[in-house]
Amino acid sequence: MTLSPDFFAWMTEQRAAMEFFLDRQLPAPNVTPTRLHQAMRHATLGGGKRIRALLALAAGELVDAPRARLLCVAGSLELIHTYSLIHDDLPCMDNDVLRRGKPTCHIQFGEAIALLAGDALQSLAFQWLSEESEDPLQSGQIPLVHLLAVASGSRGMAGGQAIDLESTTTPLPLPELEIMHLKKTGALIRAAILMGAHCGSAPLKAADLQHLTHFANRVGLLFQIVDDILDATMDTSTLGKTAGKDDAHQKATYVTLLGLGPARQRAEELEQEALLTLARLPLATQRLEDLTRFMNARHH
Amino acid sequence: MTLSPDFFAWMTEQRAAMEFFLDRQLPAPNVTPTRLHQAMRHATLGGGKRIRALLALAAGELVDAPRARLLCVAGSLELIHTYSLIHDDLPCMDNDVLRRGKPTCHIQFGEAIALLAGDALQSLAFQWLSEESEDPLQSGQIPLVHLLAVASGSRGMAGGQAIDLESTTTPLPLPELEIMHLKKTGALIRAAILMGAHCGSAPLKAADLQHLTHFANRVGLLFQIVDDILDATMDTSTLGKTAGKDDAHQKATYVTLLGLGPARQRAEELEQEALLTLARLPLATQRLEDLTRFMNARHH
Repeated sequence: MTLSPDFFAWMTEQRAAMEFFLDRQLPAPNVTPTRLHQAMRHATLGGGKRIRALLALAAGELVDAPRARLLCVAGSLELIHTYSLIHDDLPCMDNDVLRRGKPTCHIQFGEAIALLAGDALQSLAFQWLSEESEDPLQSGQIPLVHLLAVASGSRGMAGGQAIDLESTTTPLPLPELEIMHLKKTGALIRAAILMGAHCGSAPLKAADLQHLTHFANRVGLLFQIVDDILDATMDTSTLGKTAGKDDAHQKATYVTLLGLGPARQRAEELEQEALLTLARLPLATQRLEDLTRFMNARHH
Repeated sequence: MTLSPDFFAWMTEQRAAMEFFLDRQLPAPNVTPTRLHQAMRHATLGGGKRIRALLALAAGELVDAPRARLLCVAGSLELIHTYSLIHDDLPCMDNDVLRRGKPTCHIQFGEAIALLAGDALQSLAFQWLSEESEDPLQSGQIPLVHLLAVASGSRGMAGGQAIDLESTTTPLPLPELEIMHLKKTGALIRAAILMGAHCGSAPLKAADLQHLTHFANRVGLLFQIVDDILDATMDTSTLGKTAGKDDAHQKATYVTLLGLGPARQRAEELEQEALLTLARLPLATQRLEDLTRFMNARHH
């Protein structure tokens, strides 16, 4: 893996900017209803790899997108991702107690507040994307809302989770596992890249958008395969979330279906395919290349 | 109560149009993930008073709004309302088994699918509001997204539910009860009226918007007081949802705080105040007047 010399500095800086933005934009913990706002902040702040935010920021750099708009887009993606984690951790779903190295939202605040915190984070994402902009016609914002809404909904993330739920009784064969992941994690990762690229002043050419979409789909699968490998091979304290869950829930994963070696090989192939696709773009794609390599090499 | 002679015909027609729109626009029950889509349809279709939709449609008629846009706005409000009912009925919230005369979503489909169905309905509302319109600049859509997002979130509906949750341990005094209701039910009712009025070709004058907002706040409280009265006085089969819940949960309501007679009197006052506010608008407000009277006189 060859990363740009400044990659880790860049990533650290973007994560800090994201944390600062989220901290400032989320409702303050002393604003009524205080426990709800505290729960929203507990789940969103102080942790997380911010992969979706980083992808949106890197894609936005491709097209010289204004920083303020990019941070807002990246923030809205993190809100949707966080809401999905809160609901995914609830007793009726994965029933998990640890997330991002902290107690899950319902362990800390109770199930009802956790449910509402997830709901309110989803609303807040769309609120942020629809704040009044300097552009009086607000052109460009509606496609962002639409990308995020489709990616979050029944044909995207929530739909992928529903397929995943049903797969615990009947394990999925590999092609269907990929379809499930293209929705469950892939949809929001794809949206992150496309939303970032949409924040430039001019739309991408159709061919470039097609390459970027193909890249985004490869990266989404890559992320999930690595997640499956980490779940099977790392311990809970390294991950900051419960390890070995897939096995405990008898879920079909890349690792259980393919075995560890072939799963790693599939991740390599996806990385290569993603990088080759990026190379077709007549744009400075260094950050996205770095992120792709990093996503395959990450340890948590 | 004097209603226009054609009011019930109008209401029946609007409800039928709404049902037709929702049935056609919701994902079909045989589209993957099928159980998720079936759960979304189960909760949304075939019942409900459609008060929020009716208010949006009536407010839109004030300003000669295009019918297609109004139906989309009314539909998105019904999706948000339905998602809130699904989540509100979950075991960790009200733990209810009956809604709109049918088993609640989690009774029919299980808790996990019900949770996801609510989540996906919220996303779908924002998807509908951000569909490509004939207007190439999509002006006017972003304020609709923003109104709905704010009304749904932690300072609106979800926030009101959080305050309500905490009030079951410490009953609220009357002024705080009103604040809670202005959020929990009032925010979406206000959004319905303002979103409908926003669908016209020209914005309302500032003074008119102020009157309409005042009207919307009165109607929101009126709706809730009548809900409290019905919960205390009607039976489950008439309501199509479990009656007497407030009392069972020892919740502070207008009825428990004021008594039945004064609660009815407060409803009368709010109706009068709402009608007087409407009379200040230089617009044909007959439908909204009818709806106000109907909301006070309804029996379920």
